[in-house]
Amino acid sequence: MDMQDLTRSLHVRNDSKIVMVVADGLGGLPFESGGMTELDAAHCPRLDTLARRGILGLSIPVKPGITPGSGPGHLALFGYDPLQYVIGRGALEATGIGFELGPNDVAARGNFCTLDGAGLITDRRAGRIASHESAPLAIRLRQVKIPGIEVFVEPVKEHRFVVVFRGPGLGGDVRDTDPQATGVPPLVPQAAQATSAKTAEVAAEFVAQSQKLLKGEAKANGLTLRGFSERPALPPFEEVYGLRAAAVAVYPMYKGLARLVGMQLVGNAQTLDEQLAVLEQEWQNFDFFFLHFKYTDSTGEDGNFQAKVQRIEELDAAMPRIMALDPTVLIVTGDHSTPSRLRSHSWHPVPTLLLSDVCLSDLCEAFTERECIRGGLGQFEAKYLMPLALANALRLGKYGA
Amino acid sequence: MDMQDLTRSLHVRNDSKIVMVVADGLGGLPFESGGMTELDAAHCPRLDTLARRGILGLSIPVKPGITPGSGPGHLALFGYDPLQYVIGRGALEATGIGFELGPNDVAARGNFCTLDGAGLITDRRAGRIASHESAPLAIRLRQVKIPGIEVFVEPVKEHRFVVVFRGPGLGGDVRDTDPQATGVPPLVPQAAQATSAKTAEVAAEFVAQSQKLLKGEAKANGLTLRGFSERPALPPFEEVYGLRAAAVAVYPMYKGLARLVGMQLVGNAQTLDEQLAVLEQEWQNFDFFFLHFKYTDSTGEDGNFQAKVQRIEELDAAMPRIMALDPTVLIVTGDHSTPSRLRSHSWHPVPTLLLSDVCLSDLCEAFTERECIRGGLGQFEAKYLMPLALANALRLGKYGA
Repeated sequence: MDMQDLTRSLHVRNDSKIVMVVADGLGGLPFESGGMTELDAAHCPRLDTLARRGILGLSIPVKPGITPGSGPGHLALFGYDPLQYVIGRGALEATGIGFELGPNDVAARGNFCTLDGAGLITDRRAGRIASHESAPLAIRLRQVKIPGIEVFVEPVKEHRFVVVFRGPGLGGDVRDTDPQATGVPPLVPQAAQATSAKTAEVAAEFVAQSQKLLKGEAKANGLTLRGFSERPALPPFEEVYGLRAAAVAVYPMYKGLARLVGMQLVGNAQTLDEQLAVLEQEWQNFDFFFLHFKYTDSTGEDGNFQAKVQRIEELDAAMPRIMALDPTVLIVTGDHSTPSRLRSHSWHPVPTLLLSDVCLSDLCEAFTERECIRGGLGQFEAKYLMPLALANALRLGKYGA
Repeated sequence: MDMQDLTRSLHVRNDSKIVMVVADGLGGLPFESGGMTELDAAHCPRLDTLARRGILGLSIPVKPGITPGSGPGHLALFGYDPLQYVIGRGALEATGIGFELGPNDVAARGNFCTLDGAGLITDRRAGRIASHESAPLAIRLRQVKIPGIEVFVEPVKEHRFVVVFRGPGLGGDVRDTDPQATGVPPLVPQAAQATSAKTAEVAAEFVAQSQKLLKGEAKANGLTLRGFSERPALPPFEEVYGLRAAAVAVYPMYKGLARLVGMQLVGNAQTLDEQLAVLEQEWQNFDFFFLHFKYTDSTGEDGNFQAKVQRIEELDAAMPRIMALDPTVLIVTGDHSTPSRLRSHSWHPVPTLLLSDVCLSDLCEAFTERECIRGGLGQFEAKYLMPLALANALRLGKYGA
C-alpha cells in the first residue's frame, strides 16, 4: 500500500485551504566553509516570523544524495513517488513547452543532425544550429502526413524539437534512434514491446518524410528521435487527496507538471504580484493552491548569489498578501536546492516551513537551512509533504480502528 | 527482507529485561501557538531524569501525516509493519471486547437495523438502540444453530455486536452485507474469494435464523454484517525476537492486541499500582514486558488538558518502582498522539524515551515533544523501536560478517 492508496481511502473534505509555495531551487550553500547561504544572507522578516510560529524541516526530493530534475522534484512535492512515477523525456519535453499531452499521444524529443551523402551521421547536433535557424525547419516538418495519425511538431532550442503523434493504439515503448555515435546512420525506430509496434511504424514514416523535407539543408538534413513516451498515468490530485487544486505558475514546465496531476491552471500571471492577484481572485474556488516561484532557481543556476538573495527577499515580501487570505495550511519549500555556488540543481535537502493551527511549533528562530536541520519535521522525503498538508488541514481520517 | 526477517535471524538470548511502557495517546499540542503541551505542563521529575540519562526521539506510528487507530499504532510498536499487517475490522472488534480469536475463526461486526414489512432497511442503526435493549437481543442470537459450526455472539455498544463463526474451511473474505443505504434490503453475504464460499453460506444461514429470532422487535428486527475477517497471521513475538513477552494491560483491546502477537497476558490489574505489582511478581518469568497505560489517551479524547497532565504525572510517579527492577532497557512511548486540543488521535509523532547502559545519551533535558525533536533517536518509524530495544539489550547479533 503506497501513500496515495492511504490518502485515497482516508481523505475527507472540509473548508480548509492549503497553499504550497514552491520556491524553485530554494536551498543554497555558502561560498566558503562556515559562511552564509543565500537564505542566511537574505533579510526575511516575514518568513522568519512564520518560521517561529510554524514547524521547519528539510525535504529530501528523491533520496539522500540524489539531485532531481524539475519533473521528479515537483512530482514528489505533489505526493507522487518520483521513483514510482517516471515522466518520459519526450513527455517532459512536451510538457515543458506547454504542449498538453492527451491519452492517445506519444511524444518524442527530436534532434536535428547532419548526414553525409551516404546517410551517415557527421554531427549529432547539426552543428548546434541556432534556434532561429532550426525553428523554421521544425515547423516545416508539420507538413508530414501520416494516415490516421495527427502529427505535432514544436521547436525547442537549437537542434532540439518535440514531435507528438496522436492516434489510437500508439504505445510509448520505442527505442531511441540516436546511435550516440557518428559515422553510422540513425537507427530505425524499433518497438521494445508489441503494443508499441504501430508507433515504431509511424515514427519511421515520420523520419522518412522529414528527411525529404530537410533535403539540401547544410546542417540539419537529418534527425534522430529519443525518449518516446506516453502521457504518464498519474492518478488525479482530486481523486487521491479530495482537493480541488489550482496552479498559479508562470512558466510552461510547471504549468504542465501541475496539469499532469490534474491541477487546474488559473490566471495568466507573468510576475509574482500578478500571481498573488490570481491567488486572491481564485481563493474561493479551490482547496489547494500551488504557487510556483521560478527565480530562486534561475539565479542559482546563473551562479548569482546576490541575485538569488534578492529573489528570496522578493518572496519574503509576498508573504503578507498570502497570509492575509488566512490559509489553513501554508507550506514554503522548494522542489530541490540550487546553490549559486554549484550553478546547478543539487541533492541538498530543501528548507521547508509548514504553518497551521495544529502544527507543533518547534522553537526554531528563522527560515534558514541550519534552523531547518533542527526543525520539528526532521528530514523527510518530499512525497510525505502532501499527507502532512492534508493532516494539518484535518483532511485525513484515521488509519485502522 | 523486512525487519522481522532480520531480527528473526539475528536475535540471541540473554538475561536482559526489556520494559516498554506505552502511554496511549501520549503526544500533545499547546492550545495556542508557542504555548505548553501536556508534557510541558506536567511536572515529571522522574521522567526528566530518565530523559537526561537516556536517548529521546519521535516515533512516527505509520507514516508522516497518518493518524493511526489503536490496532496499527500497537502493531507498529510491537515491530509489525502496520501497512503490511492489517487487522480486519471484525477481528479487531472481537479483539477489543476480549474475544480470543482462534485459527479457525471468522469474525464480523454486526449492526442491528430496522426493516419494514417488505424487508427493506428503514434505519441502518436500528434507531441507535440503547445498549441495555440491544444486548439481550445479541445474546438471543446465540440460539442460532449451524451444523458443524460454532457460533459466538457478543454484544458491543448500542446497535453493534460481534459474531464469530468457528469451524474448518472458513475464509475471511466475504463482502459486507450493509448496503450503506436505506430503502433497500440487506445484501446477501457473498464470498470475494472461492476459499470463503463456505463462510458466505454460514453467514447467510446465520442471518436467516437471526431474522426469525428478531421477528416482532420494533427497532432491531434485522441485521447487517461487516468487516468479515480471520485472525490476522502475525508471526509470534518469541519467534521473531526470541523474547518471552508478557502484557500488563487493563483494557481488553490492548490485551487482545498483545495476545495476537503471542504475548502472554499476566495478572488482572485494574489500576497502574496493580499493574506495577504484576510487573514485580512476573519479573523473573519473562524477557519483555508491555505495560499499557490508557488514561493519557482517554483524557486527551475528552479534551481535558489538565486531566491529561495529571495522568502523565501519575505515570511519572510510577517510574521509581519500574526502575527499582533494574530493567536492561526501558522504553516510554505512545502508540500515537492524542492532543487534548484535537480531542482525537492525531498524526503528530510520539515522544519516545529509551534508556539502557549502552544508549548514547543525547544531552536532552526533559521528556517533552520539543526536546524529543532534538533527541538522538531522531524521527523514526515506530516499527524500528523493537529492533532498537533488542539492540540495546544486546540481543541482536551482527548482520553479515
